[in-house]
Amino acid sequence: MQRYRLTLEFDGSAFVGWQYQTNGLTVQEVVETAIGRFCATVPRIMSAGRTDSGVHALGMVAHADIDRDMPVDRLFEALNFHMRPHPVVVREIAPVPPEFDARRSCIQRHYVYRILNRHAPPALDAGRVWHVVKPLDLDLMREGAARLVGHRNFESFRSAHCQSKTAEKTLERLEITREGEEVHVHASARSFLHNQVRILTGTLVDVGKRRWTPDDVTRALAARDRQAAGPTAPACGLYFLRADYPPETSGNAT
Amino acid sequence: MQRYRLTLEFDGSAFVGWQYQTNGLTVQEVVETAIGRFCATVPRIMSAGRTDSGVHALGMVAHADIDRDMPVDRLFEALNFHMRPHPVVVREIAPVPPEFDARRSCIQRHYVYRILNRHAPPALDAGRVWHVVKPLDLDLMREGAARLVGHRNFESFRSAHCQSKTAEKTLERLEITREGEEVHVHASARSFLHNQVRILTGTLVDVGKRRWTPDDVTRALAARDRQAAGPTAPACGLYFLRADYPPETSGNAT
Repeated sequence: MQRYRLTLEFDGSAFVGWQYQTNGLTVQEVVETAIGRFCATVPRIMSAGRTDSGVHALGMVAHADIDRDMPVDRLFEALNFHMRPHPVVVREIAPVPPEFDARRSCIQRHYVYRILNRHAPPALDAGRVWHVVKPLDLDLMREGAARLVGHRNFESFRSAHCQSKTAEKTLERLEITREGEEVHVHASARSFLHNQVRILTGTLVDVGKRRWTPDDVTRALAARDRQAAGPTAPACGLYFLRADYPPETSGNAT
Repeated sequence: MQRYRLTLEFDGSAFVGWQYQTNGLTVQEVVETAIGRFCATVPRIMSAGRTDSGVHALGMVAHADIDRDMPVDRLFEALNFHMRPHPVVVREIAPVPPEFDARRSCIQRHYVYRILNRHAPPALDAGRVWHVVKPLDLDLMREGAARLVGHRNFESFRSAHCQSKTAEKTLERLEITREGEEVHVHASARSFLHNQVRILTGTLVDVGKRRWTPDDVTRALAARDRQAAGPTAPACGLYFLRADYPPETSGNAT
């Protein structure tokens, strides 16, 4: 039995989320079923994040215990072969020590939220971006973001379904960049609350539209009430980008 | 009756190409049908390029004569509304003089070809890129590209179905860039032969894999024989990017 770290890319629009559900196909199910096709036992895989329905990933990290002794290159090929035609691929696979835990060992999670900020709706990126017609004022959004970075109580910025015992989190980074017709919101933290990045983004977009001021963001944070913050941005614009681990647990990628 | 210039974005994977065919839905049909939903007569639209099945566009230009007098903003909304749910959108629409012809007035056409150059297949960009596993040598590709730029006979770089009377064309630009995990081939010319960008790309990828040398490219060009050049790169990686017009014919965008 060997533990592996898997780095996964997936198109969230094909799934009802990461974690097993009764109402549709999940990413977890596709990966576990694929492993079961060439291994005697089907492992339960664990991931750095349990993304919601429609949320994408460019570099989700998971771990899996695999009972079959095979070269890591062949494992890579077998996994990608058996996950077809579902839009999930393993980008990297690496043996890791048994104490590596994709969820518990993770020291930083990185998300990016993609907003298509133009008049015309998306044709090529439908389901991949949030379409916002009104031109966004990035300077104001950055001012709003500055009010949110740091160790704070994010009670106003989590969904009613959030299971975290505390709403106190440290938001390490919340940056806004423009990439051609898109506006990207980059968020990094050790851990996030349920829907936190989407509510942060929805709130900052209201600021970018000048519907809200940066001071309104400060007030929303102080209220510690979900009703006080802005709307939850749609799932389709959110990407789990990367998870960081301490060097001693993270193994070597192929 | 007013002539308009339309700038279109579309996902080519949903269509059998630009131009009317009996075997499936085309972009032309979607745009013309949408216009017919709110105008008395359905115009025949003309475009800068007749892209093949699977080829995408970020900025295809077409012209249409519209018999209904309405503000350009409402025309934009009506067109985009009636093209749903097909993955075609109008990005810009502008009134143009009647002598503007999207095909004949065009003085430069720009394409980009996207190659995903990594081990793992695409999950999010399946159908949007050509997946090439072997790491490409960009310096060699650029050396190969340099042999192709300029006024030349591209007989070796057009499909058997090409209807152009002459294979002599001026390739203004053929540049290779790396964008993260992707390699992009940028091609610009007044006009292209059928499949020319795809055959140029297929040939340069053979050079990038070190299967061919830049001298082989020179030999392929000199042979004036399709069999002498490299393979035709798949349609899914190709994007019609932009069409240029002389300023006096091109109108003003909204």
